[in-house]
Amino acid sequence: MSVTAARGFRAAGAAAGLKPSGRPDVALVVNDGPADAAAGVFTRNRVQAAPVLWTRQVLTTGRLRAVVLNSGGANACTGPEGFADTHATAEHVGAALGIGAGEVAVCSTGLIGVRLPMDLLLPGVTQAVVALSPAGGDAAAEAIRTTDTVAKQAVRTSTSGAAGDGVVTVGGMGKGAAMLAPSLATMLVVVTTDAVADSATLDRVVREACRTTFERVDSDGCLSTNDTVLLLASGASGRSLPEAELTELVTAVCDDLAGQMLGDAEGSTKTISITVTGAASEADALEVGRSVARNNLLKCALYGKDPNWGRVLAAIGTTSAAFEPDRLDVTMNGIQVCRGGAPGEPRELVDLGGREISIVADLHAGDVELTVRTNDLTDGYVYENSAYST
Amino acid sequence: MSVTAARGFRAAGAAAGLKPSGRPDVALVVNDGPADAAAGVFTRNRVQAAPVLWTRQVLTTGRLRAVVLNSGGANACTGPEGFADTHATAEHVGAALGIGAGEVAVCSTGLIGVRLPMDLLLPGVTQAVVALSPAGGDAAAEAIRTTDTVAKQAVRTSTSGAAGDGVVTVGGMGKGAAMLAPSLATMLVVVTTDAVADSATLDRVVREACRTTFERVDSDGCLSTNDTVLLLASGASGRSLPEAELTELVTAVCDDLAGQMLGDAEGSTKTISITVTGAASEADALEVGRSVARNNLLKCALYGKDPNWGRVLAAIGTTSAAFEPDRLDVTMNGIQVCRGGAPGEPRELVDLGGREISIVADLHAGDVELTVRTNDLTDGYVYENSAYST
Repeated sequence: MSVTAARGFRAAGAAAGLKPSGRPDVALVVNDGPADAAAGVFTRNRVQAAPVLWTRQVLTTGRLRAVVLNSGGANACTGPEGFADTHATAEHVGAALGIGAGEVAVCSTGLIGVRLPMDLLLPGVTQAVVALSPAGGDAAAEAIRTTDTVAKQAVRTSTSGAAGDGVVTVGGMGKGAAMLAPSLATMLVVVTTDAVADSATLDRVVREACRTTFERVDSDGCLSTNDTVLLLASGASGRSLPEAELTELVTAVCDDLAGQMLGDAEGSTKTISITVTGAASEADALEVGRSVARNNLLKCALYGKDPNWGRVLAAIGTTSAAFEPDRLDVTMNGIQVCRGGAPGEPRELVDLGGREISIVADLHAGDVELTVRTNDLTDGYVYENSAYST
Repeated sequence: MSVTAARGFRAAGAAAGLKPSGRPDVALVVNDGPADAAAGVFTRNRVQAAPVLWTRQVLTTGRLRAVVLNSGGANACTGPEGFADTHATAEHVGAALGIGAGEVAVCSTGLIGVRLPMDLLLPGVTQAVVALSPAGGDAAAEAIRTTDTVAKQAVRTSTSGAAGDGVVTVGGMGKGAAMLAPSLATMLVVVTTDAVADSATLDRVVREACRTTFERVDSDGCLSTNDTVLLLASGASGRSLPEAELTELVTAVCDDLAGQMLGDAEGSTKTISITVTGAASEADALEVGRSVARNNLLKCALYGKDPNWGRVLAAIGTTSAAFEPDRLDVTMNGIQVCRGGAPGEPRELVDLGGREISIVADLHAGDVELTVRTNDLTDGYVYENSAYST
């Protein structure tokens, strides 16, 4: 149910014909209120797609009534004409729903540098408006897929306080299968809740949730021009949660979606968690985790089920984190293959046959620990990203 | 002839049996003088192999009488025992040549995290000593290959001044086919010259030569633990060149070797030059060039002959360089596919069929220009780096 799990939301998916396959490619999420507070986090790429520029501007009000999303085209690097296309899309949604264009967020995903076929997109948006339903979450999640092989949804409910009407629900949908990136790591995510919350609270909540989930995923080191995470609150539950609890729920939904993205990353055969322990600071731990996650040679080795821990050390060595090379320990799937910067247990003991791989790197320089997740680098990834434009 | 092209040098290659294939794996270069000035540049990786630690220490004297190199094992992440192995190798060379161990540089390349089989290596070094010859450059270049499909050599001679005995020669050999890296971009390079030059001059010359050649090559973004570039001067020509001319010759040799490495990079089908123009500073231009060179999605697209210029802009957008997104121009193999951050000429006009690909990115933020070179990302690269340990 994803984005329509929380009360106060309707959604829909439609096939506008943007994709040659004819599969659904337009999604619409509408917040029926009573409240319309919202917040968002966007790509840190300085080359930002037209819908990102538009939605950042719209969100300065702290309010959103609807989100329209399309796959089949990123509308990035399309100049003033591309921005006008985004504006026209929001206007079209606003007119159909009887709201202002300035209350409509727009998200796009697909090939960069190509204009959207507006003659197809706008009728598709109209179709989606007609199809809006409190049960439309699945259809919307389906319509934002690009190379994702499955739709990605997650729901969590509050456990504190009274049951029944008093329960707060948080639901989300996401798409992302490559270009999962070093700072904000997904393509498009919409999370909805029926909690009562103002936009300033939502802003803190969504930033904190992203910090420990999407921002610690680095599938292929490539930062998209379109990354967007939106959080909308309808207030339809009539309840407000303590901020920490709302943060926990939203974080759980984001973490679930991030895991689904890694599990479905283009061409991947491994989901790899890199836990950095004994770091002097969170910044150090993150730098080390990302450096390991982005090392192509290691990612190839893990695809080949080769516990080549030397490549972990080589990746750590490129960082500015506090550590001494002769104190580094590395454990792979439970076997401490490197101890004090030198060989530990025999690498033959490490079994890398399954999809999940755990790497623990101990810097022995402090007590901070965090985990960055990535995928292996495979011929499947190369194929998906060389055989056609995405 | 490479390292024996200049007068005053002998070299040899031998098969010690470090490689399962039985191919040559030990190289020796000896400077017979009359002078023995030397300088070097090393990996910026903080995890440094034992031979790098040893050779850095040796070079503090500004003198080298010999360089011993082995493939078949990097001797990195091998702890104090690994350092003792390097020391023993230098002692062995010194004893055989009647010089001090402290006059012997050691370089190793191969798998990280495994001790060298000294019972094989030392007899191999003895073989190399016996085989030393003023015509041994080819054999030495052959012996340092790992996954290189061809030996890499380059020679240049001075054109200024008198001919014949007065000519200064610079020759070099190199190996490197992956782990060509963001700061110092090769595995092992030895350059020799018969010029008369002191070690302080050689130090400036080798740093400047690396800065504009190996340091602007980024094959796969991975920085090795063993990268070493050594420059040895015998003074046997009896001539000293103006520093600028010597720098030019050494740079030409390094540039030639760097090009050979890119042409032979593991699994590559394309050699890609990324020229950044209109940058506000050299640092900006280098950051942009490296970011583009390291973008896996772009590298896959180019393998697939897809002029996906949006990925160039996405890569530029992750940098902190001075530029405005709506002023960026990108030209691929002569076709300006992006103008002012938006589509320019049709991408269909770009022919990416050949091995050489030229990308020009104009930031319109200044007048600095430089070129970074890289390769495409292919299933061949994935295969070579996943199918066995290197």
